[in-house]
Amino acid sequence: MPRPSLSPITAGLDETVPFVGPETIVRRSGVPLRARIGANESPFGPAPSVLAAMASAARESWHYGDPENHDLRAAIADHLGIGFANVMPGEGVDAILGMAVRLFAAPGSTVVTSLGGYPTFNYHIHGYGALMHTVPYIGDREDIDGLARAARETQASMVYLANPDNPMGSWWDAASVERFISAVPETTMIVLDEAYGEFAPSGTLPPLDMERPNLLRMRTFSKAYGLAGARVGYVFGEARNISAFNRIRNHFGMSNVAQAAGIAALADGAFLQQSLAEIRRSLDDTAAIVQRHGLTPLPTATNFVAVDCGRDGSYAQAILDGVAARGVFVRKPAVAGLNRCIRISAGTDADRALLDQALGEVVTGLR
Amino acid sequence: MPRPSLSPITAGLDETVPFVGPETIVRRSGVPLRARIGANESPFGPAPSVLAAMASAARESWHYGDPENHDLRAAIADHLGIGFANVMPGEGVDAILGMAVRLFAAPGSTVVTSLGGYPTFNYHIHGYGALMHTVPYIGDREDIDGLARAARETQASMVYLANPDNPMGSWWDAASVERFISAVPETTMIVLDEAYGEFAPSGTLPPLDMERPNLLRMRTFSKAYGLAGARVGYVFGEARNISAFNRIRNHFGMSNVAQAAGIAALADGAFLQQSLAEIRRSLDDTAAIVQRHGLTPLPTATNFVAVDCGRDGSYAQAILDGVAARGVFVRKPAVAGLNRCIRISAGTDADRALLDQALGEVVTGLR
Repeated sequence: MPRPSLSPITAGLDETVPFVGPETIVRRSGVPLRARIGANESPFGPAPSVLAAMASAARESWHYGDPENHDLRAAIADHLGIGFANVMPGEGVDAILGMAVRLFAAPGSTVVTSLGGYPTFNYHIHGYGALMHTVPYIGDREDIDGLARAARETQASMVYLANPDNPMGSWWDAASVERFISAVPETTMIVLDEAYGEFAPSGTLPPLDMERPNLLRMRTFSKAYGLAGARVGYVFGEARNISAFNRIRNHFGMSNVAQAAGIAALADGAFLQQSLAEIRRSLDDTAAIVQRHGLTPLPTATNFVAVDCGRDGSYAQAILDGVAARGVFVRKPAVAGLNRCIRISAGTDADRALLDQALGEVVTGLR
Repeated sequence: MPRPSLSPITAGLDETVPFVGPETIVRRSGVPLRARIGANESPFGPAPSVLAAMASAARESWHYGDPENHDLRAAIADHLGIGFANVMPGEGVDAILGMAVRLFAAPGSTVVTSLGGYPTFNYHIHGYGALMHTVPYIGDREDIDGLARAARETQASMVYLANPDNPMGSWWDAASVERFISAVPETTMIVLDEAYGEFAPSGTLPPLDMERPNLLRMRTFSKAYGLAGARVGYVFGEARNISAFNRIRNHFGMSNVAQAAGIAALADGAFLQQSLAEIRRSLDDTAAIVQRHGLTPLPTATNFVAVDCGRDGSYAQAILDGVAARGVFVRKPAVAGLNRCIRISAGTDADRALLDQALGEVVTGLR
């Protein structure tokens, strides 16, 4: 029977999702979720001051939010010490990545990223009909020289680097990132995803260069600010590129609650510092726990720790499955080399007690 | 200097916005906003029960929302009496319209809509590189026969009908809409935007047909439920088409607060009925006010009233500018024929008192 056709690019896409949510896992398995430490969220947030701002903004939900996101945009610009024209808020980095790909990756052009890098970026590459070219990690870090070389060799429209990195938690220092940026062709748009930037040691984030025409940097309120479920992120860079987002963004897409949450979060620097300390403590303790069970925590500049399970991907998967069966939600990288690891997000004391017990049972059982 | 290129379609877009927000108008004019009755919002919502659910959900903002929107999706399906697979929630109808165009309007294909119809749909037509073909209104209604004919003649990939209509407030009965649907080619995807459906007289919304492969219907929590600023809408139709949204949607795009707001809103039918009555009373009173000032309210099946100012577009614009200078925000259609009107949304008693006074001064001044 005749029916409407999907557009050529979307006809070629499948309906799998970048990440299966823990809620779906629970619905499928029937195992109640006891410790949610798999999505790099922060159980320490949001701040009470942010919750108050959100409740207040909820009462304004009868009207659309400001489509310019003016006050949030100004607050972020002020926070970074850059111009209003250099930043654009959006509905989380995931949405912003999609817009960036739509703007800068022509269908059929090549986009370079790491093999095992952020799946949602890959989702957008495919989603807009670009071709993905991947570069393997080296030593559990994204291969910045390899990425730059691939960008040159493929005349890439875009290249993606997460620094600090997800899923490995590794990072490059600012000088290395600047070397990478300089080595990428001027015609290739660099996406520097700094979603985990607040957790990184000082000297990791390069200085702000708002003049470079081939650099988009992204940060989020989802991680350090504990607002994953509120959907607030931003992109910053050269004003002309930032302004281009106005061509395609969902102008009324940010809720009043989300805008208010972002503004309030930036205003509560004390809470941020407290959260960062809690997360640091949580990760140190997580590292100690996994070591007690014979696993190796990798160094991290994020709010999670990648844990080398010491054997192959099947073994790490068995550990993940084992703790999942005990209600402990963690994730793991999928690609060879990285897949020997599981990835555990910062959790509460209760989360880690559950992790400790589950890991103990599972590792013992696998021996 | 070399720089990244915008992709071919986005390079051809401009950076104007579908709607300038009232906040922007205030920032530009310096005139404080006193009556916000221009964006078809509902000052009577959201329900107290919804506010409570939103505040509670805000406390869950530390984690991502369920990417399947499972509970909201089930609640909407239950509300409509259709299957779970037949509905997909999204970040407001604006976002859903964008996804629908991306899925079904191939670049270079023709999309049919009314001349003067919803600008954000047009924004998406251009945004995804389709060609817009417009059909003028007839008698202040969308020309359903003309739209169907144009869809046939242009072999359109999509055709758009808002019923009830924005910006005119007019509507077709269900039998006419069904005639329209039958007259559109089976290969043309029909978007039936029912954002104002809850306000329509009974007999306006066609029966639910979840088998038709060329029909997507959309509704929202922004209007009757008073949740414009929360960003919750949905599309419903044939399961295969609904599932296609999974290819491209921002899976983690809906906040916890938005999902909870939608669920709570559906559960509070009494509040909905109360809001609908308040809005009806407000519109009746608005009609009486504009008549007292010599203007003609058009019949409406929405939460706003289009007001025929009785002369040309410049005259209606002068009235709009005049009330705007007094802090009363309304909008008006832009295209010839419709532009003799201004569009006034349901407001509170205080809003209408301000409107009454402003209109009186402006109309007297223009005489």
